[in-house]
Amino acid sequence: MSLASQTWADKTEQADGAEAEPASGFKTPYLIYFGDVESPGYAKTGLGLVDWRRNLCAGQCRAPECCVDSGLPDMTIEEAANAGVGSFVIGVAPAGGFIPDRWMQDLIKAARAGLDIISGMHARLSDFPQIADAAFESGARLIDVRTPPKHLPLGSGVKRPGKRLLTVGTDCAVGKKYTALAIEKEMRARRWKADFRATGQTGVMIAGAGFAIDCVVSDFLSGAAEVLSPAADDDHWDVIEGQGALSHPSFAGVSLGLLHGSQPDALVLCHDPMRMYNLGTERKQPYPLQSLRETIAANLAMARRVNPDARFVGMSVNTSQLSAAEKSALFERYATETGLPVVDPLKDGAKVIVDHIDKEFPYVPQA
Amino acid sequence: MSLASQTWADKTEQADGAEAEPASGFKTPYLIYFGDVESPGYAKTGLGLVDWRRNLCAGQCRAPECCVDSGLPDMTIEEAANAGVGSFVIGVAPAGGFIPDRWMQDLIKAARAGLDIISGMHARLSDFPQIADAAFESGARLIDVRTPPKHLPLGSGVKRPGKRLLTVGTDCAVGKKYTALAIEKEMRARRWKADFRATGQTGVMIAGAGFAIDCVVSDFLSGAAEVLSPAADDDHWDVIEGQGALSHPSFAGVSLGLLHGSQPDALVLCHDPMRMYNLGTERKQPYPLQSLRETIAANLAMARRVNPDARFVGMSVNTSQLSAAEKSALFERYATETGLPVVDPLKDGAKVIVDHIDKEFPYVPQA
Repeated sequence: MSLASQTWADKTEQADGAEAEPASGFKTPYLIYFGDVESPGYAKTGLGLVDWRRNLCAGQCRAPECCVDSGLPDMTIEEAANAGVGSFVIGVAPAGGFIPDRWMQDLIKAARAGLDIISGMHARLSDFPQIADAAFESGARLIDVRTPPKHLPLGSGVKRPGKRLLTVGTDCAVGKKYTALAIEKEMRARRWKADFRATGQTGVMIAGAGFAIDCVVSDFLSGAAEVLSPAADDDHWDVIEGQGALSHPSFAGVSLGLLHGSQPDALVLCHDPMRMYNLGTERKQPYPLQSLRETIAANLAMARRVNPDARFVGMSVNTSQLSAAEKSALFERYATETGLPVVDPLKDGAKVIVDHIDKEFPYVPQA
Repeated sequence: MSLASQTWADKTEQADGAEAEPASGFKTPYLIYFGDVESPGYAKTGLGLVDWRRNLCAGQCRAPECCVDSGLPDMTIEEAANAGVGSFVIGVAPAGGFIPDRWMQDLIKAARAGLDIISGMHARLSDFPQIADAAFESGARLIDVRTPPKHLPLGSGVKRPGKRLLTVGTDCAVGKKYTALAIEKEMRARRWKADFRATGQTGVMIAGAGFAIDCVVSDFLSGAAEVLSPAADDDHWDVIEGQGALSHPSFAGVSLGLLHGSQPDALVLCHDPMRMYNLGTERKQPYPLQSLRETIAANLAMARRVNPDARFVGMSVNTSQLSAAEKSALFERYATETGLPVVDPLKDGAKVIVDHIDKEFPYVPQA
């Protein structure tokens, strides 16, 4: 371990203590709660878990008016408890992160049945006395994955060993988490040392570790990002879930803190070709997305402050709305514009991106 | 009021409610506590209060090993209490915002003596049972100026009426607050409508309003900046105190959230020619300051995302360590390099910057 990483470790000692432990040790299998959700856009937490950790999911729990079907078997809370389900996972993320009153009876019932409750809402489960009482009586745990560790350090900017990849985007919700998961999967298939590092609530549930970085007090943003991808072996890759976008008027601060603290060696650009304006700005004052080149330039300019060797290694595109011919034409255009290998990770996997990483970062064992 | 500002006002309605009230109503005069601070860089809270509100400061309280002298009369806590001092103000801001154990006896003594305690630390005074008990018994108030309002909105990016100036820098602690205060003073001397907008603990103590933006949960950074400089008359200037630096590996996220939410029309570049490395990075991994041109380019690139007309209107330099001849030579070089009027606001005031603003932004009454 280098001197640099030792001093970094000193600095983050507090954050590595008991209180700073990331969420982990969730009881499986899961019952995924979709409640009365109206559209898949608000159900990405639960659908993400089913996509990436199907083996941990026993069933889904839905109200009659629910408009989402994850494909899991439907189960009531009673059936889940009898079947030995460990946790009741809130699979829905309404705007604002509030817990609607109409879910309350289900949450109380699940806690009373002894299921741990795992929530990615801003509101804390333990702030609802009826849920807290039911959990206390049954011994169920209330787990808020948005609650960051206490005593995070300030960012130090000190370079730490290990390789890091960060997914960045032209906007929020353009596939940064799925791209990172697909890259981790491909790296692991090649027996590389690689860990997906979650920075948002769904990612934390999938990884069973990490915390939502947008819940951190802003003075500690880059420090939190340093804690989320700690010093590692020289040939180890942290594949870090990006957040927001440097160009998004609501969330750019989070994106920059995460970028600086992650010190990425490699960046992957994520984009949704159907998106015209930054998400959430459409109605009041639409912000047209920045171009791919502008996005690459802005991210590199900022990333190179903390890692002069930072470079882009691939592009990830959501092509769910495109025909095969449209996809092919678009990928050709993007490849020309960016000079990068382009994939839709959900259709193509991340093979060509990891091939490119292999060329850009040949592993040289240290003396 | 335009439609845009109405919808923005709707969005921030919560934040304008009772809970969002900024700190105000401090009891004067103040006893400024410098404890055992090692260098003036960590004492900027107390020194700032003395510089800008000397008339409110009765004395300073220092340990024998203290390396800072504000010029105020030295007073013990007992003497201050007997002299009718209203508040004990922690004038020191150690990195991280923690309250060191070695201050504890003084804080307890001050609370027991009935002085309100005003703190800009991250740690809350009321979380220390001995301080809380002493304050409860004497009736003293514990005032944490870093506690942001509850229920801040997400940033909307919607353009609001009024003119805004933001001070930005090549580093932390290079005079962004003082520059803003000097510009407000000069604007008010010309009978312009102008308000200094505080975004850090010292600024809040000076202004008696605002909150420390680096204490805001990071998801709400740009929303907080929108709240701090609300919609105003077209010919009104908010002169906003900048924070950190886009190039600082610890704090850039805060700087970008503040830049986006402030939507500045005018930017002023602040710099300390004696500073070689970003503050706090010197010992472990020194980050050389970015050049003036790089700093200007990075800030403009980001500011123009939310305000395409953003431009620099001046440069502010801390020349406290320079002779008159050195200052003059340096200003000539900086003026050539940036094309901007250059001042040391503590020696020259902000006259030439405000002259330049007057030219760049002629007031055109709206129909």
